[in-house]
Amino acid sequence: MTAVTYDDVLDAAVRISGHVLRTPVLEISPGLFLKLELLQHSGSFKVRGAFNRILSAGTLPAAGVIAASGGNHGLAVAHAARSLGVRAEIFVPEVTSPVKVAGLRALGAHTTQVGAIYSEAAEAAAKRAAETGALAVHAYDQAEVLAGQGTTGLEIMEQTGGVDTIVVAVGGGGLAAGTTLGARAGGDAPRIVAVEPHAIPTLHEALRAGRPVPVQVGGVAADALGATQLGALAFEVLSGVGVESVLVEDKAIIAARRALWERHRLVAEPAGAAAYAALLSGVHRPADGERVAVVVCGSNTDPATLSGAAG
Amino acid sequence: MTAVTYDDVLDAAVRISGHVLRTPVLEISPGLFLKLELLQHSGSFKVRGAFNRILSAGTLPAAGVIAASGGNHGLAVAHAARSLGVRAEIFVPEVTSPVKVAGLRALGAHTTQVGAIYSEAAEAAAKRAAETGALAVHAYDQAEVLAGQGTTGLEIMEQTGGVDTIVVAVGGGGLAAGTTLGARAGGDAPRIVAVEPHAIPTLHEALRAGRPVPVQVGGVAADALGATQLGALAFEVLSGVGVESVLVEDKAIIAARRALWERHRLVAEPAGAAAYAALLSGVHRPADGERVAVVVCGSNTDPATLSGAAG
Ligand SMILES: Cc1ncc(COP(=O)(O)O)c(C=O)c1O
Ligand SMILES: Cc1ncc(COP(=O)(O)O)c(C=O)c1O
Repeated sequence: MTAVTYDDVLDAAVRISGHVLRTPVLEISPGLFLKLELLQHSGSFKVRGAFNRILSAGTLPAAGVIAASGGNHGLAVAHAARSLGVRAEIFVPEVTSPVKVAGLRALGAHTTQVGAIYSEAAEAAAKRAAETGALAVHAYDQAEVLAGQGTTGLEIMEQTGGVDTIVVAVGGGGLAAGTTLGARAGGDAPRIVAVEPHAIPTLHEALRAGRPVPVQVGGVAADALGATQLGALAFEVLSGVGVESVLVEDKAIIAARRALWERHRLVAEPAGAAAYAALLSGVHRPADGERVAVVVCGSNTDPATLSGAAG
Repeated sequence: MTAVTYDDVLDAAVRISGHVLRTPVLEISPGLFLKLELLQHSGSFKVRGAFNRILSAGTLPAAGVIAASGGNHGLAVAHAARSLGVRAEIFVPEVTSPVKVAGLRALGAHTTQVGAIYSEAAEAAAKRAAETGALAVHAYDQAEVLAGQGTTGLEIMEQTGGVDTIVVAVGGGGLAAGTTLGARAGGDAPRIVAVEPHAIPTLHEALRAGRPVPVQVGGVAADALGATQLGALAFEVLSGVGVESVLVEDKAIIAARRALWERHRLVAEPAGAAAYAALLSGVHRPADGERVAVVVCGSNTDPATLSGAAG
């Protein structure tokens, strides 16, 4: 029995309904589904966990909410706070893209850029939270956040009528672990293929070591998948179900991002294209008749980087 | 009894299934649905009519298929021809965007750019078709094309569980007329709000004159909505159901296009954003509880034109 359960995901679904979009799935070939979570409010799935955490808290402190983020979690917390009329303070590292920093400010969040990578911004946020008493919304390692992200898995199973495999990107592991829990309605749980860049193998190294361990953070998806180590909750869930951990090259992520635009007119950020990269590069080859859902999970990017690729 | 019927749309749906995507709908607020036809193969709904016309023809002439187009119809015919292993020849006017011309060539279509506007390219194509005997696939005024586009309406009603109103853009009128036919399952037909730029009012002027009449062609959506006059089939269908014809300013189209990206992460071309512009600019104001579907119908555009708008 893990600390977070399928029932927690069901509760989260009720709690956040009306606050998040039920993003559609697109069947791009028979049995191959893209879950279009990049069309979600704030441009990523992160609002699911953010709303679930904030709405679970009951009365909020006067200082509002606080979060550290590579960018997308911050955008999600800022979006949720604004829509609920709550103050938000967000800490992001230097690696966060200008598009995301501009987005945070546009949402009215008090934004501080500090530290080279996510973990340093997270330290600064923790210190500040201790001073102000604001409600901390963790980017992945909190039960309510994991349960919120899990509604993605719940929807995938409902919208596709069931799949054999879900392919999903991993940073701190909240999305993959939540999706794992949310997708196991009834007895039949789909296989989870968890995708990471070679440049940030948090899950891969955690599975090897038998516990979350710090890894180097780099590459094209660092501003979204750049957690220094896997979350404890995610490790418990993912190792418990025998997750299949695969790694993709940065250039496969770039090619997948381009293919998503050229073939499917979807503008994904690198992290949002990582799961699709595992299929496109052949790292995961579906068997005949295997029904596969790929979570396309983020779009906070400058569309100009896709210029010249249409048609 | 019109020349094209609901049953023709049902037949088309069977014929083109497997060749076109069943594009999803996104409910962006309660009862407000976007039909994401911009994610369709070739970047617009036009493949629906193109496949239906070509697959209805039986044996094809050695010269293959031929079409004149502002761009999207050409891309659709080129896509369909390539996927069916047929030769395609496409005539486009000078107003066609470079993105679309490059796309046509990339699809292997024999592409000729001729004439200032669509109607001049159409004349050149008709002359050429008479010489070669190629199967002409009209951009809107052909029964099979109209029936194919109509599968959009069929899907909207299935996917939303029914709406009161469908808001849809008009050029030659094939999409709007087809959608009108496809959406009238059972007795209850939704109201059709047909949207055109002030700069190209083909339906608006046809309804005033009591028949299709030539109009000036201009503005930001000219390369997709730039038919010189409404098709005869479309006039018959649309005037027969008492369509509501509305006009939007080019600047409302530009604002809608930007909002689709900023709020919903959808990259639409101007014509693809025209229907949404009617809502956003208040030209169509839904009543309380009115269920509305908006067809977002094209994405053949350079995403760089949306740069700086993310977040
Ligand atoms: C677009 C995108 N994909 C995937 C992830 C990874 O999510 P998690 O940290 O829950 O593993 C993130 C995290 O920020 C993200 O923004
Ligand atoms: C994106 C887009 N929207 C709308 C239309 C108008 O379609 P119709 O000519 O069937 O009215 C077109 C036609 O090319 C188009 O490309």
